[in-house]
Amino acid sequence: MMISDSVLGIDPGSFYTGYGIVRLEHQRFVAIDYGTIRLAKNIPLPDRLGFIYRELEALISRTKPAGVAVEDVFLARNAKSALQLGQARGVAILAAVNSGIPVFSYSALEVKQAVVGYGRATKEQVNAMVRRLLSIRELVDSHASDAMALAICHINSLRFKRFEVQP
Amino acid sequence: MMISDSVLGIDPGSFYTGYGIVRLEHQRFVAIDYGTIRLAKNIPLPDRLGFIYRELEALISRTKPAGVAVEDVFLARNAKSALQLGQARGVAILAAVNSGIPVFSYSALEVKQAVVGYGRATKEQVNAMVRRLLSIRELVDSHASDAMALAICHINSLRFKRFEVQP
Repeated sequence: MMISDSVLGIDPGSFYTGYGIVRLEHQRFVAIDYGTIRLAKNIPLPDRLGFIYRELEALISRTKPAGVAVEDVFLARNAKSALQLGQARGVAILAAVNSGIPVFSYSALEVKQAVVGYGRATKEQVNAMVRRLLSIRELVDSHASDAMALAICHINSLRFKRFEVQP
Repeated sequence: MMISDSVLGIDPGSFYTGYGIVRLEHQRFVAIDYGTIRLAKNIPLPDRLGFIYRELEALISRTKPAGVAVEDVFLARNAKSALQLGQARGVAILAAVNSGIPVFSYSALEVKQAVVGYGRATKEQVNAMVRRLLSIRELVDSHASDAMALAICHINSLRFKRFEVQP
């Protein structure tokens, strides 16, 4: 399997943006790279958005994923957090689009079902299963593990069907 | 006054993004360019965000504004519309940041006060006053007039103080 078959999962946020690049090798999921882009609260919003964009653009250019997976957002805590999430999500999607990479989206239910086999799994269960599936022994924060879960979900879905990202 | 002293106001939205470039000439406001980027509902979100970004980037590169003004958003109708607005807002802010243009934000109250002199003015009153201040005789949609109102508000505020965009 070529590197071009890797998938980049992104869990965007105004202060923490998790990412994870996963591919299948001999029917096993392998993590190529993962981490969390962390931004201090005192950095002005425009600079934070610019930083997230440049980091993701560099990551995409370096690893050349075949697709980007983000989460569908149906319920945000409130309008303010939805706006903040939206700004980071827009920038993350743009980094993919401007690099010519197709973007796909999955609901939290689909992601949990794909990774844990149970749609109401907790963040901790997703985290534990992602580390197990990818044979990662070190601790991984939930932003990065959610991002890798998205990538795994997309790789699984590729065998069946494609979802286009919805507004 | 040089062209570099013009201000770009942006009223971002997932389907309609208003923009207006305004500058002061001999103590009068002049509209350099204005309009609305309209996107069909059937275009997938990533493509819409990419289109908004490229249009704004081209506009900024052509007109070289000294600053970009956007609206503070305190209240969105609901979490879903806040997310959609946030995505477009993030992309609009990014177009400014990636062009090295500083971004400023103003509340609806400040904009209405600056343009109409009354913080609870209606959209129609803002529209009428923007056209009057800029001597625009043709009809202007509210996306473009809201964007020009932001630019006027920012130019006015430059004489007094600066606001950095808040998260």
